[in-house]
Amino acid sequence: MFITFEGIDGSGKSTHAKRLYEHLSNIFGNERVLITREPGGWSGGSQLRDILLHSDWRPWSEFFLFMADRCEHVEEQIKPALVKGQIVICERYTDSTLAYQGWGKGLPLEEMERLFSLLGFPLPDLTIWLDISVDTAMKRIKARSASDRLEEERFLAVVRRGYEELSKRNPVRIRRVFSGDEEEKVFEEIARVVEDFMDEGGKDKL
Amino acid sequence: MFITFEGIDGSGKSTHAKRLYEHLSNIFGNERVLITREPGGWSGGSQLRDILLHSDWRPWSEFFLFMADRCEHVEEQIKPALVKGQIVICERYTDSTLAYQGWGKGLPLEEMERLFSLLGFPLPDLTIWLDISVDTAMKRIKARSASDRLEEERFLAVVRRGYEELSKRNPVRIRRVFSGDEEEKVFEEIARVVEDFMDEGGKDKL
Repeated sequence: MFITFEGIDGSGKSTHAKRLYEHLSNIFGNERVLITREPGGWSGGSQLRDILLHSDWRPWSEFFLFMADRCEHVEEQIKPALVKGQIVICERYTDSTLAYQGWGKGLPLEEMERLFSLLGFPLPDLTIWLDISVDTAMKRIKARSASDRLEEERFLAVVRRGYEELSKRNPVRIRRVFSGDEEEKVFEEIARVVEDFMDEGGKDKL
Repeated sequence: MFITFEGIDGSGKSTHAKRLYEHLSNIFGNERVLITREPGGWSGGSQLRDILLHSDWRPWSEFFLFMADRCEHVEEQIKPALVKGQIVICERYTDSTLAYQGWGKGLPLEEMERLFSLLGFPLPDLTIWLDISVDTAMKRIKARSASDRLEEERFLAVVRRGYEELSKRNPVRIRRVFSGDEEEKVFEEIARVVEDFMDEGGKDKL
């Protein structure tokens, strides 16, 4: 079973991915659960993650770097874990690329999706979209210069609309969880969504 | 005018690209000529070049890293130089990707070419394919362990056949120059090929 966490910066993905990892490890044993993330979630990934997050790339270059990272990540981590029957929890995946590089930076969605399918990236069984207002996200993101902030606010608003559109197009796979409440309440909702998904048939995958 | 140098490792691309740069600078003035290379031939390219040449990537990951590098290189260096009317001399370009990642590593050529065209990479006006036997190339490449050498020899043989096929498919653009002779003689041939090309109409581009 392949579960991804998605959402704009500051939406709480890391926190809740870790909590879900602990929760499912308690139920199924931690050898049954793998937690990972993109970019950089594979043995040689830290250098590429650094390059990706600390330079100013043109949109297509950025997309290709994410693709290189994802190829390694999928082949080294995700596919072997799924083959072994593990539950894979991954922070950011293909939906991030569509929301950020597609809606956010204007790259054509159908071209990106075509490549995901050509490369045989496994589709998540369940995607938790942690939705939060751009206002709240901006408060959680550490302060930058005023002009950067304005630009970032506008960018995140477009990316958030991208996630909204993705969730409309994939209503079964993507479940929206409002992430503006206190952590405990948000996680209860996530745990309930995952449980429901397992009851609905996702459990066949375990 | 956009001239690329192609060929397997050890075929003399760097040497002859530099010689052609000096030759054309003497004729047209060095402000009219740009010499560059892939990967890494742009302001932030050295980090990506390092990553590309010193790690063991899966074929698609490698392809995507070359694409990211090429996007930056084309937009920052090649296109602006061509717009300014400069002669661009580039060591390795899209044919390297087709020969190495396509013929060499089995990635589908039509998919790679589709992306080159989607990204709007300018096509070279003239490509000098420095052809050399794998034997001679291996002698020029610095000694590695015996098992690496055997593997490399086989790989270069496949890549060389890729260049052969590319030159058959693009008989006008790609000109084969046999690079096994002494440097001076090889360069005379290159200079003649470039001169012929200019006489044939390539000069309209200047």
